[in-house]
Amino acid sequence: MRQIALLLIAVTAAGIVAYKGTASGQADGQAPVFVTRIPPGYRDWKLISVAHEEGDLHSFAAVLGNDIAIKAYREAKLPFPDGAIIAALHYSHVSSEENNKVFGRDQSFVPGPLTNVQFMVKDSRKYSATGGWGYAHFNKDGTPGDEARLKTCFPCHQAIKARDYVFARYVPELRVTAEGNTR
Amino acid sequence: MRQIALLLIAVTAAGIVAYKGTASGQADGQAPVFVTRIPPGYRDWKLISVAHEEGDLHSFAAVLGNDIAIKAYREAKLPFPDGAIIAALHYSHVSSEENNKVFGRDQSFVPGPLTNVQFMVKDSRKYSATGGWGYAHFNKDGTPGDEARLKTCFPCHQAIKARDYVFARYVPELRVTAEGNTR
Repeated sequence: MRQIALLLIAVTAAGIVAYKGTASGQADGQAPVFVTRIPPGYRDWKLISVAHEEGDLHSFAAVLGNDIAIKAYREAKLPFPDGAIIAALHYSHVSSEENNKVFGRDQSFVPGPLTNVQFMVKDSRKYSATGGWGYAHFNKDGTPGDEARLKTCFPCHQAIKARDYVFARYVPELRVTAEGNTR
Repeated sequence: MRQIALLLIAVTAAGIVAYKGTASGQADGQAPVFVTRIPPGYRDWKLISVAHEEGDLHSFAAVLGNDIAIKAYREAKLPFPDGAIIAALHYSHVSSEENNKVFGRDQSFVPGPLTNVQFMVKDSRKYSATGGWGYAHFNKDGTPGDEARLKTCFPCHQAIKARDYVFARYVPELRVTAEGNTR
């Protein structure tokens, strides 16, 4: 999932407000629809991967998935089924003075403050204009991102269409040895 | 949790084999006991944090916790209760050619191959010689680490005794806004 992402136009306590944007730049000429509500419980979802961006971002990410997304990853099934949601929790990438003291040199980086959280929500009909994924971006204070940001999401993810528009790969775990020590 | 860590001496299919090491270098003169079995299900545990080490390591980590550990983090309760387990999944920290193409410059880093997985298991009696935590290290092929590695774990974690020997801090999530958009 890219750090450059989308905007949410409206947020309500109760649910989802669909925003109909302009049709310009859309793959199939339809108006894009964006996700406007933070999926509940995302902080407790299972790990997909981690990420680190430099350039203008200096960001550290944890990429998590809901159960539908995780199941699809494990089964290596594409496209992701409707209902799959992927979350990217972004923090600043900062040097850890505390850890460096222990190591005796500058080598350790940890998450700084939360910068934003982004989501991809799969609904092949609702979000057909953007590859079947609805995009979301929330700033650190919980407010949705601005329109300029929202417009950059899908064009970037199109580069990874072969993996159903999803950049993050599922990180492996330990192999099971003959001695059965892994489980 | 540090990348420099501990050794497991023996692993069986059935369970835990306690290793009694030498007493040298231990805080209270007791022999250290180490964890020798990979805690089941760790890949699905909840996120504590992420980490990145340079120097000789070039490692990328996801730090996960079992439910007991996560509850203690959320309640900011120290020391961690018995039964808490923290896992550090380590991968090499590699440049992503795929992502860099999309960005148009070299800025993106992703997890490379798995390098090792480490655990801290809290049992204040069993692991009393090492601050109440049993340490574990498993290589990428599932085999336990060597003795030299095992001996470096606790001395390093002693530096963070004030947080019950645990380096990783629990990363925050989005704030709830007045509009109630976060949940």
